[in-house]
Amino acid sequence: MINTIRAEVITIGDEILFGQITDTNTQWISTELTNIGIRTVRKSSVGDQADAILEILREAHQRADVIILTGGLGPTKDDITKKTLCTYFGVELVRNADALALVTSFFEKRGREMTDLNRGQADLPANAVYIQNDWGTAPGMWFEHNQCVYVSLPGVPFEMKQLMTNRILPRLRQHFETPVIKHKMIRTVGIGESFLAERIEAWEDALPAHIKLAYLPHFGQVRLRLTATGTDESALDRELAEQVAIVMPLIDKHVFGFDNDELETVVGQLLKTKNLTLGIAESCTGGYVSSRITSVPGSSAYFLGSIVSYANELKVKQLGVSPDTLARHGAVSEETIRQMAEGVRRTLGTDVGIATSGIAGPDGGTPDKPVGTIWIAVATPERIATRLLKLGQYRDQNIQITTTYVLNLLREVLKWNTD
Amino acid sequence: MINTIRAEVITIGDEILFGQITDTNTQWISTELTNIGIRTVRKSSVGDQADAILEILREAHQRADVIILTGGLGPTKDDITKKTLCTYFGVELVRNADALALVTSFFEKRGREMTDLNRGQADLPANAVYIQNDWGTAPGMWFEHNQCVYVSLPGVPFEMKQLMTNRILPRLRQHFETPVIKHKMIRTVGIGESFLAERIEAWEDALPAHIKLAYLPHFGQVRLRLTATGTDESALDRELAEQVAIVMPLIDKHVFGFDNDELETVVGQLLKTKNLTLGIAESCTGGYVSSRITSVPGSSAYFLGSIVSYANELKVKQLGVSPDTLARHGAVSEETIRQMAEGVRRTLGTDVGIATSGIAGPDGGTPDKPVGTIWIAVATPERIATRLLKLGQYRDQNIQITTTYVLNLLREVLKWNTD
Repeated sequence: MINTIRAEVITIGDEILFGQITDTNTQWISTELTNIGIRTVRKSSVGDQADAILEILREAHQRADVIILTGGLGPTKDDITKKTLCTYFGVELVRNADALALVTSFFEKRGREMTDLNRGQADLPANAVYIQNDWGTAPGMWFEHNQCVYVSLPGVPFEMKQLMTNRILPRLRQHFETPVIKHKMIRTVGIGESFLAERIEAWEDALPAHIKLAYLPHFGQVRLRLTATGTDESALDRELAEQVAIVMPLIDKHVFGFDNDELETVVGQLLKTKNLTLGIAESCTGGYVSSRITSVPGSSAYFLGSIVSYANELKVKQLGVSPDTLARHGAVSEETIRQMAEGVRRTLGTDVGIATSGIAGPDGGTPDKPVGTIWIAVATPERIATRLLKLGQYRDQNIQITTTYVLNLLREVLKWNTD
Repeated sequence: MINTIRAEVITIGDEILFGQITDTNTQWISTELTNIGIRTVRKSSVGDQADAILEILREAHQRADVIILTGGLGPTKDDITKKTLCTYFGVELVRNADALALVTSFFEKRGREMTDLNRGQADLPANAVYIQNDWGTAPGMWFEHNQCVYVSLPGVPFEMKQLMTNRILPRLRQHFETPVIKHKMIRTVGIGESFLAERIEAWEDALPAHIKLAYLPHFGQVRLRLTATGTDESALDRELAEQVAIVMPLIDKHVFGFDNDELETVVGQLLKTKNLTLGIAESCTGGYVSSRITSVPGSSAYFLGSIVSYANELKVKQLGVSPDTLARHGAVSEETIRQMAEGVRRTLGTDVGIATSGIAGPDGGTPDKPVGTIWIAVATPERIATRLLKLGQYRDQNIQITTTYVLNLLREVLKWNTD
């Protein structure tokens, strides 16, 4: 087993600590590090205080081969990263000629006056390797100290990303002998995390030590993430493909895609290839199914439109649901959902119609139809498939899970013509 | 000054470390902690490895009065938080009767089989205070150990937020002597952050030191958050009310609400009090306007339904837009949007009709109608109001901002009968 390079990613700034801005930097950085085979072992955020920064640097040095710092490089008083790095390394700030030239030209180009604060941005700790920043005024810095690499970058996401992509990542690949890390994501729907786990337990236990499995659940979906570590990229790809081939027969009914596939893109592809048009009748989901479908660029190729029939009279008027059915069985019933799915096909003149009707909550539940009782249906020229869902009490969740399930029912019907 | 309570927020999970999912939990948690006067001193993410979790617990204990952990509580093998907490506290796992009863009823309600993995979710470290989770199957836990409070919560954002809001935050306020912190949120729409800042600059500069202002922009809205810190709650409330009274005249046209008001709830209230029904015609927003409106519990009182007319033939067939208008001016035109808003009132028989039509992107732009060109309209029995939006390149953003603007136009029309 090759020794993995361990990284620690640290963001500096009170605004992140107090939750005033979202930190997108650490996620992006650790993804990029993973892709070049460097394993992030810890991500942290600390405030703009010297002692907090010194403490985390000392800790991180115990754990990591490379430490990536972002933030605290601005020209103002509260940005103290550089001073603190001087204290940590026991060096002085030295004005860097190249950095000064760059800052100067940056201001000249924009015809703006340069202040001493701006000139100060060209001051670097004496042991810093100057990393040119062509996208802003704060230079990047690279340090090597006690068998550890320290990288300090501005916190502005755009500048940080440019510096990482063009300067730091190539340098890290050179500096370390990085192992290869490959990921494969299997995306499932309609089966709970624990049931999935039981079904694939034997396979999971038999996974080789260098392939790890993680379960990532989200509103009726569970993503299975395989992570393989090694030296030979094509060998890892082959091994991951082999493992997927072994596990698929156990779960294939629930697998809707891989890696970045989404249900709405997968059903969109199915509709496109089968050259079918889609219409949607929504009651309890109130337009959310349509918004998921239309979140896909180019969905107008197969999606014609929807009727959100919140009021029962519109179920009758717009979808042709029989008043008698509504009176006898209610809006939340298999009889009504069938007529809604059929009705939207007819009214909008589409090949396929899908429908939802249920009690999203928090109110409207009855003893025999409690909140979370929801019917979904998919109608094609050949058949109608219906399902009864028994979900929880929370409106948001019920709407999201119902949408996922009706999109999945559509997928199943299009794929296997099942009912 | 009252001594501050120091918190450390820790997320557990390889998927966060490797950058595969965005960690929204730590930002949300530290914001909530700030609101009750607890200062986050460090945020960290570690992987699903016992040694990494034990190490950070020992470190955090040195720094913090309260440690909030999220993640690693799922039923599957890769979730090891509970076992690791047992090692850390030197206790055993014990099956908790209340937790077991809850998990059991959770599965019974859904008519699903329960597995040993699910039963295992009722096992807690012996020194844990059981925190009931009514929103999922993984219990929350509260520990007190060596003058430090430890809280362990599931990583699923929805469950975590419910547990924090309803169980943990009140408990923390009780347990610690936190200073009094009061917030007042002023919610604006339709004015950019920098314009807002210019308009209220003098007021902002004159704010007393113990009242802080934050700008929180989000898709066409800007929230102004006033935070007052002190000891006397009623005095703080009075001071906040005074500051709001001073600033309101400068911005009142743009203020749609306060605190937790949302545009969809505000327009819902307006429709209710005026006893008006609403119908929606959506093209480029593809159902998102309807889903925002129906995200409000009880919206069925005023919202009858929508027609999502993605295809032009449905704009004609369902909304009665004239083919001649479509041919001459196109679907993205003031003429068409007027006929859509009028048409949906007629077709669905509602008092008010709102409509959207535009080029959400990324494709479909033309030199005279680039991506981001979007028309919105609101039709009442008395008048029609229309607006042309010139937005950006990004499909998601365009859909969200358009929705915000059409809801705000509806608010303005209902409030002032303007056109």
